[in-house]
Formats: sequence, C-alpha cells, structure tokens
Amino acid sequence: MGSEGITPRDEDYSQWYIDICTKAELADYSAVKGCMVIRPNGYAIWEKMQRALDDMFKATGHRNAYFPLFVPKSFLSREAEHVEGFAKECAVVTHYRLMNAPDGSGIVVDPSAKLEEELIVRPTSETIIWSMYKKWIQSYRDLPLLLNQWANVVRWEMRTRLFLRTTEFLWQEGHTAHASSEDAEAEALRILEVYRRFAEEWLALPVLVGRKTESEKFAGAQHTYCIEAMMQDGKALQAGTSHHLGQNFAKAFDVTFQTETGTREYVYATSWGVSTRLIGALIMAHSDDHGLVLPPRMADIQAVIVPIFKKQAELQAIQEAVGRRADSWRDAFSFQMDDRDTVTPGFKFADWELKGTPVRIEIGPRDLAKGQAVVVRRDLERGQEGHKTFVPLDEIVAHVPRTLDTIQRNLFDRALAFRTAHTYDVDTYDEMKARIEEAPGFFRAFFDGSAEDEARIKAETGATVRCIPFGDQGERGTCFLTGRATNQRVIFAKAY
Amino acid sequence: MGSEGITPRDEDYSQWYIDICTKAELADYSAVKGCMVIRPNGYAIWEKMQRALDDMFKATGHRNAYFPLFVPKSFLSREAEHVEGFAKECAVVTHYRLMNAPDGSGIVVDPSAKLEEELIVRPTSETIIWSMYKKWIQSYRDLPLLLNQWANVVRWEMRTRLFLRTTEFLWQEGHTAHASSEDAEAEALRILEVYRRFAEEWLALPVLVGRKTESEKFAGAQHTYCIEAMMQDGKALQAGTSHHLGQNFAKAFDVTFQTETGTREYVYATSWGVSTRLIGALIMAHSDDHGLVLPPRMADIQAVIVPIFKKQAELQAIQEAVGRRADSWRDAFSFQMDDRDTVTPGFKFADWELKGTPVRIEIGPRDLAKGQAVVVRRDLERGQEGHKTFVPLDEIVAHVPRTLDTIQRNLFDRALAFRTAHTYDVDTYDEMKARIEEAPGFFRAFFDGSAEDEARIKAETGATVRCIPFGDQGERGTCFLTGRATNQRVIFAKAY
Repeated sequence: MGSEGITPRDEDYSQWYIDICTKAELADYSAVKGCMVIRPNGYAIWEKMQRALDDMFKATGHRNAYFPLFVPKSFLSREAEHVEGFAKECAVVTHYRLMNAPDGSGIVVDPSAKLEEELIVRPTSETIIWSMYKKWIQSYRDLPLLLNQWANVVRWEMRTRLFLRTTEFLWQEGHTAHASSEDAEAEALRILEVYRRFAEEWLALPVLVGRKTESEKFAGAQHTYCIEAMMQDGKALQAGTSHHLGQNFAKAFDVTFQTETGTREYVYATSWGVSTRLIGALIMAHSDDHGLVLPPRMADIQAVIVPIFKKQAELQAIQEAVGRRADSWRDAFSFQMDDRDTVTPGFKFADWELKGTPVRIEIGPRDLAKGQAVVVRRDLERGQEGHKTFVPLDEIVAHVPRTLDTIQRNLFDRALAFRTAHTYDVDTYDEMKARIEEAPGFFRAFFDGSAEDEARIKAETGATVRCIPFGDQGERGTCFLTGRATNQRVIFAKAY
Repeated sequence: MGSEGITPRDEDYSQWYIDICTKAELADYSAVKGCMVIRPNGYAIWEKMQRALDDMFKATGHRNAYFPLFVPKSFLSREAEHVEGFAKECAVVTHYRLMNAPDGSGIVVDPSAKLEEELIVRPTSETIIWSMYKKWIQSYRDLPLLLNQWANVVRWEMRTRLFLRTTEFLWQEGHTAHASSEDAEAEALRILEVYRRFAEEWLALPVLVGRKTESEKFAGAQHTYCIEAMMQDGKALQAGTSHHLGQNFAKAFDVTFQTETGTREYVYATSWGVSTRLIGALIMAHSDDHGLVLPPRMADIQAVIVPIFKKQAELQAIQEAVGRRADSWRDAFSFQMDDRDTVTPGFKFADWELKGTPVRIEIGPRDLAKGQAVVVRRDLERGQEGHKTFVPLDEIVAHVPRTLDTIQRNLFDRALAFRTAHTYDVDTYDEMKARIEEAPGFFRAFFDGSAEDEARIKAETGATVRCIPFGDQGERGTCFLTGRATNQRVIFAKAY
C-alpha cells in the first residue's frame, strides 16, 4: 500500500483511482445507483474549471441561458440519427404525484397522476433548445445565436465509475445557430481551440486535436471534433467534443431564417460540451501513489503552511511572522495555515499531499530564527532535485508564484513526455494487436477502413479510433488493415 | 399601452409582469408544461446573484458540493412531517429505457425497464444529503459541516408564473450539521442575516426579517425564518428562508456523533435557500411601464453608450473619443456601445430602457465639440430632477460610478417608502377585511390565533401571516381576532 492506504498504481490502477477519489474526499457513492456525490474538494475543482471556461466562452461572444430539465418524449423522435444515439438509456418520468398507500405501508405512486406524454430527463439538450430557437430565430439579424448552458444531464449507465461515467453528471453544453455552414464550421473549430487551450494551459493536460470517424461521431452530427488525452495507464480519455450539426436539427424543428437577399433557409447548428469527467482526467493524468496532484491553476488552496512547533509560544511566533506577510502573500497566491495541535506535522504533510496541494511551506522555530522557510513541491518525489528549497521569508511572496508556474509547466511537460513515450507508429494491424496488451498507448497508423473494420478491431483488441489528428495528414501510406493507399493517419487506443 | 407594447401596471399588473419578462427577453415559455426557459438577459441576473451570494457563503465558512438529482422514494417517507409537506406533487421516474414501438410508430417506454424502486426528482435535498451525512459524521471533530449546493429542483405545480412559481427552478440549498441546538440556531440566523444583506444591499429590496408561524413553517422544521419583501401591487413575496431543523433528519437517517465527553448524540441540522424567484421579486419591486429597472449592482451592462450621428465620420469621431477613455471607464463601470446603424437613437433609448440598463450615455457631434456627454438615469422619469445631466467627457469616469451608487440607493429608498406607505396598523380583523381589497399591503396586527384561525383568515381574505417580525415584539396588545392579550405582532398580507 502507498501513503494513507492508497493502492499503488502498478498494483491496481483502477483501485488506485478509486482510492484517490474517495480518500482525498473528491467524491463518494450515493444511495442512488450510478449517481455520485461530488464532495467539496472535488466540487472546488469543478468551480475552477467552470470559471476558466465560462470566461473563455464569454470572451468569444457566448452567453449563458437555462433550458428545462425535461424533454417531451416525442421530441426525441424528431431527429432520426439522434434518437438512435441517445433516446434509449434514459430516465423516464411517467407520473407527477405520490400518495399515502391505502394500507398505510408508506407512500406509493398515485396511479391517477399519469402524464399524457412521458418526459425524459435530458441526456443532452439539442431537441428542447431547437424547439425554442424555432420561436427566436426569424431573420439573418438573429444570427449567430451563441448560447451555453451549465446543467446536469442523465444517461442511464449500467457500469459506472466516479467522475468518468455516472448516470447523472454535470457539464456545459453550447448550442449555436448560424446562417451558413462555413460559420457553423468555424464555430465548431473555434470552440475546439478553446477546449485545447483550457486542457493544456489550465489542466496541464496535453491533448490531441482532431476529428472523429463516421462511426465515432455524435448522433446527428456532420462532423465531430474532439480533444483526446492520455492517462497514466496509456488509455485515452475524450476530454471534450465539438459538433458541426449541419441543418439536421433545424429541419427536425423547422427552424428557418430570412436571408439578406430575402430567401428562406434552414439554420446551421453546432453543439459542444465538456463535463465533470474532466475531473477524472485531471486525477488520472497527474496524481501519484501519495494522492492527488493538482495543477496550481486548478488548486483552490495553492500552498499550505505547516508550522512546526512544540510549545504554544513557538506557534504564536510563527503565526505572527506569517500574519505580518499574509496580505501580500494572499495577493500573490492562495494559502491556508494548518495550525491544528491534535495531529503531528508528519500527519499534516501526508494529509495535504493526499489532497494535492501544490506547495507546502514548513516553518519551525529554527527556520524562524534564520528568517526562512522550507518550500516543498508536491509534483516532485522526495530526494528529487528542487523538491525542497530553503527560502527567506521575505522572498516567499515572489518565490511561491514562480514555483507554482514551474509546477504547472512541469506537470504538462511530464504528461507530454509520457504520451510521446507511449505513442507508437505501427505499419500493420497485427503489430498493434501484438503490442497493445503489454504496452497500452496511442497507436498511430494509416487507416482507411470502414465502420465494420472499426467494429472488428474494437472487438478483437478493445481499441477504437480516438481521432484523425489535425496536422498529421497529407503524407501517403498504406492502410494498416486493408493495404489500400491512403493519406489518412489515425490514432487507435483503448479508451475510458 | 406603455413603451414597446408593455401593458401599464395600473391597467393589469399581472400582464405587465409577463410583458416585462418576455419583451425584455428574460424568460420564455417552454414546450414542457410549467417549465420555463431563462434567456440570457434573465440568466445574467441569476449569475450576478450567484456570485454575490456564493462569496458571502464562502466568507462565512461554507463550501459547495453536489448531490444526486434523484431521491429514492423510500427516503421521502423517513421524516414524517417532511413527507406530508413535500412528497406529493413531484416528478416520478419509473423507467430507465425507451424502445422503438413494435408498430414503427415512434418510441415508447420499454416496459421491461421498470425500476425496482421509483426515483423522485428532488423537490429539496434534505433526505439525500442526510443519507450521506450518516457516512461522513462520526465525531464532534466532523462538526460543524457547512455545505451548500447550487442545483435545479422540481415541484409539480398546477398554476405557474414565470420565475415566481415554476415546476423546475434553480436555487441554492444550504445543509449544515451541528453539535448543538444553539449552534444550529446561530447558523440559521447567520444565514438569515446574509439573505437580508444580500436583498437590501444587492437587490435594493427592503425586507422584513422574522419567523414563520407554526402553520407556515417548513415541513419538518423547528423554526423557519424568512425575509419578506413587498411588491408594487402591495403583495408580499417570500425572498428567502432559513430553517432550524432540530434533530429530525438526524433521527430519520440515524446520524449520531461522539461528543467531546464520549457520549453519542443526534446531530442538529439547518437548511436554507433562495431561488430564481428572486429574479421575479427584482422585476416586480423596481420596474416601470417602460420596462425593466435593474439595480446597478445586478446589471451586467451598467451603462450603454448611444452615439447620435448622421454621417459615418461623426460616428467615428465619437468612437475615437470613447476608445481613448475605454480602459479607464471599464475599470470604473461596465458598459457597451450601441453603434447599430440600422435603427434610430430613439429606438435604442427605448430598447435599453426596456432592458433596464441603469445609465445611458448619449454623445452627439455637438456634445463632442463641447467635450461633454448626456448622462440619463433609468430610475427617474423624463422631466424629474436629475434625470438628465451634462457631464464633461473626462469626468464620466468619476461621475458614472457615483450615479450608479445614487441609483442603487434611490431604488432601495423608493421601495422602502412604498412599503412604509402600504403598511397599515390594524386593531380589528374586520378593519383588515374591509381594507385589504382596495388597499393591498402589509397589515400589522396583534395576533395569537391558532392554525385554524390562520386558515379561516386565508379563506376569507386571501391573506396569510407572512412573518412574526424581529424587533417588533414585546409591546402588549389585544389579538385582533380573538381579543386575547398578547405581545405577538405579526404581518398579514396576500402573497406570491
């Protein structure tokens, strides 16, 4: 076992992940099958994500709105592909009242309160939103319409995993309307770039950016774009998707607009989303056997101050030294003083390591006498160069922000190096089949196979085409399965 | 009709309210009965509310978390009073899958996917949260536990009104756990004070602060505290509630803790919430026949700049004059330039009045020549002193923030004066009965009647006890209904 009873990664990666989630108090299982509770330590990460993304959405002209939780059942049948992809596994509301059981045994559903038409708890909101766009869009002057919603959605899942796959989850879903296919395409790509920047600059998560194959795209989309990240077990995690939906939903809900020249045309659509599964991605990309490792930009508390003391007077002296500098420190980074006197410093070190706090500042009486503190980095192992540094107290205000930047960059570089080391060019399907079990990772291959080929590969190896990466095309080669000439390079991997 | 086709208040107050909501594009009706869509102009107000409240909750030691949308049906029966108050009118999920209709007519509920136990879409989250507190609370060291959640809830409503009463609504719900009744009581009152400050300082909404009677309190609470505001039609609107729940939920979910002395005791609880109905309160308290009136602290755009121009060169000169000052202005207040050339300035004036923007800055070529602008206040009528002021362009940066403060204060003062003018001391029930129809308002009376008395008064007059206001007790008088001596003064009013 690792620290605090965390199962080491190389022993059981799945259990390690669950241990981090539960012992760092990020999440817990609820009494409702498949639904999780996001605890304060986990929700604080989601709030950081929301704030950063929301600012980026607004900076690109989007506004927030809120649409109903329920979708009339008939709406789901409107768009043929969409219903195939989404309508099946979802929560169905059939009644609107409970009553006391006639036999006094408790409460039961009131059979007389049956809905005429069942309501579906939204698995995604294209249909309800386009039913409103029908009312709001008449003219080219109403376009583009650039809305986003922060909401909960429900997809009935049989096998669930904390953050990564839960029956209910939180997300943002953007839904935009445009006058031309070019505008919709540009929007889908603009948001993809927002997602890439967010993943790389905020989550320190290097991502591949590309397009999904026909068989992996969103139900009802023309194109689906995505960002894909690699976890520490070599598996891929889809971290965000952006869809150019063409005119499918406009046609399904009869949303047309008058063009500048006076003709009427169907509106073009995009939709895009990221969810609380990003918290899972963050955990699995950076954390270690001691616990969570948070990129500094995602940490609610960036530094913890641990006073080392035996006597109350020693604690007081440390508190005063920190107190004198607290305002300037607070402007430079967020911190908390852990002055509990019921646990040892060693316990505190392990506790804050478990929670992923990027920097620890230790101050003892001898440090104080020298006017210094010990600054410890969470991202490095004990003994690694830079793990521990002695810093004059008056330089903390400049040193810690620099250290936070260094950690943020180091986490990104480390994840990128890991991905590079686990990305393999393969020339034949047999080569991938032989290697994927003992060396999971991204398999880069020329591929022009069909949806049936993809299905067969998935059945035989567990791997799917994660994306057709941008900037990786053009060269000619031979499809690793069919042997046909192609210039399409794709990434195969097992995925969460 | 008023501006922009708004029904005047004195003609039809209800229609006036609907007109403001729909024409200022705050909300719209959805295809799902009783559920509304919050449009960007409305949601921007909710975001301002969330930010202000969330900061206040965090400053008082609370953290956010997220609990499941669904509540197992059996949970609702656990707390006897709670089930009476809440369990009845709610959305019931009975199935988890749809399928293609065998006759090809569309999609139907899959009868084989029936849940063993029905799930209720949360009408409030006490039960699901206390089922988790059972896992998290063992010792006095785990207390107090101070959590809040921002979420959607569903209560099946037969008669709905935009923002004020909708089947689904957005809210925050705080749920705290304490080691003693005193701590829980202090928490309930601390939050009540947060709500009062928020209503008065941010929404410019004067509120009465007090306690609910037994018949008006929350199902399962020991005490319910509330803030009550008066709308422009003299009706009351409950703007927030804070409940001391005693040990009821701890007993229902068997949540005990070990005390410092080693004994085991049940935990004490509070819960408290405000919802998107506050947006309705904001509208009804301040707006006029020209449209929405937003308190400056609730306005996403605090000032609109309307350039008055005929030629493109004139517009350009105005844009340059604003552009040179834009950075310093943006630090002082939020603004937007409306430089559309497809509509007249008069149209723009009406449009921004409708949207409630607190300040309008008009700049024409002649103003520019004099180095000045015209600053117009939204809260005053044309011709009222202070409505229009000529301000040197270089003084805008100081003048506008001062004006925004003045508007914020004026809206509060005006609402307070209105409430004072519509608050009546009554000595007898007959007096209230005679006056409440032609002069709706707050009726202040000595009252010590029973729940049955309250029910009769409600049936006969439509009025309920809104609260037993703090700081208004102690004096002795005669109950206006029973004639018994009492020192309890209450406020009766019709309410939303």
